[in-house]
Amino acid sequence: MKDLKGKFDTIFFDADDTLWENERFFRAAEDQFIELLADYTGPEGVQDLLWRKQEDNIPLFGYGSKTYMIGMTDAAVELCGGHLPERIYQGVKKIITDLAFHEFEIVDGVEDTLKALQGRYRMIVATKGDLPEQMNKYRTSGLERYFHHCEVMENKDEKNYLELAAKHDLDPEQLLMIGNSVRSDIAPVVNIGGTAIHTPHDVVWVHEMMDMPESDRIIEVKTIKEILDYLL
Amino acid sequence: MKDLKGKFDTIFFDADDTLWENERFFRAAEDQFIELLADYTGPEGVQDLLWRKQEDNIPLFGYGSKTYMIGMTDAAVELCGGHLPERIYQGVKKIITDLAFHEFEIVDGVEDTLKALQGRYRMIVATKGDLPEQMNKYRTSGLERYFHHCEVMENKDEKNYLELAAKHDLDPEQLLMIGNSVRSDIAPVVNIGGTAIHTPHDVVWVHEMMDMPESDRIIEVKTIKEILDYLL
Repeated sequence: MKDLKGKFDTIFFDADDTLWENERFFRAAEDQFIELLADYTGPEGVQDLLWRKQEDNIPLFGYGSKTYMIGMTDAAVELCGGHLPERIYQGVKKIITDLAFHEFEIVDGVEDTLKALQGRYRMIVATKGDLPEQMNKYRTSGLERYFHHCEVMENKDEKNYLELAAKHDLDPEQLLMIGNSVRSDIAPVVNIGGTAIHTPHDVVWVHEMMDMPESDRIIEVKTIKEILDYLL
Repeated sequence: MKDLKGKFDTIFFDADDTLWENERFFRAAEDQFIELLADYTGPEGVQDLLWRKQEDNIPLFGYGSKTYMIGMTDAAVELCGGHLPERIYQGVKKIITDLAFHEFEIVDGVEDTLKALQGRYRMIVATKGDLPEQMNKYRTSGLERYFHHCEVMENKDEKNYLELAAKHDLDPEQLLMIGNSVRSDIAPVVNIGGTAIHTPHDVVWVHEMMDMPESDRIIEVKTIKEILDYLL
């Protein structure tokens, strides 16, 4: 068992599907979108079209609910034959608003884990996504009290993590990141010299899928509470 | 003349219409939107409708280009009689993409001013708006080299500035903010005990208009270069 005790002052935590449930609500929103368009097309192909539109828009507009809304309206304009009815447009807007600003659920074990670490580490949320959406989740989560602050990042590649370290006047080797996404939370952090703990989640976005890299600076746990074995 | 020399280690700079031109491009985008809808309605009322939709969306979706796009599509759905033609939808998307990711111009005197301050202060950009849009501007501005990093804020009210100070382990009295918007850059900063320098800009967004408050912690200059008289 690797021991991280005394090696880090600061811990960065991913948010979506690490601290709170996220992906399942996006999948539910997708189902609502398919239902909204039932008069125009069957479910086949809608999901693929939506994912394709998302992948087109992310490089330009970034992550999060507003980009998801643009992807949905892009797909709907195409599926409705070049004219988007107001009912569909307002339906998309409601799906996005409900998704981004209403549904909320903390991942099991998170609060006890943060409580145990509080006062021993400087804890920072490091999430990517839409700024007002993620800050709204952070504020309404009830978890704000455990953290120094929340960083919303544009993306989570190696360059972004180097910038995150520099922003906090840390060397890359002083980065300790905890999260569920191998692609976003684990691989880029260890590639620049940091350490990462992987807390798996049962639903993973296709966009995030990646094999676990080999590194002695990766720790894999089964539930978030197990991180305490390495940190306390 | 108030002397700020030696009183601050860190300077926060607003970006839009302080470091780079912004508002004039938003006004030009508005003109393009009016032209796009010329088949459906005259220019009268379009601007008002668009502003109203913007004010409705900002509390939910925050500042920046993607929210502006939602405001434009909201207005267009209404103006097109309940059916949004693909041509209009794609036209709106192009206006927003061009606005957010193409047009760019540094405010006169900014680069010389930053060069003169470099190495003497820790300089941080503190802008509000859409995260990928503002970070893209920051990176392509050529000004990144002068700054420690860029903070994109959800909003710029007193609460946000208290959080900004806490995030940087500063007391509110240690905040020095430079910007063109009385409502966003000056009033909230001095209200929490900080100091602000107002650099006026010829075009001001209606949303930002506010009378200058009275405070001996506000300095008014005519051009950004004049801040050097107070800081060097």
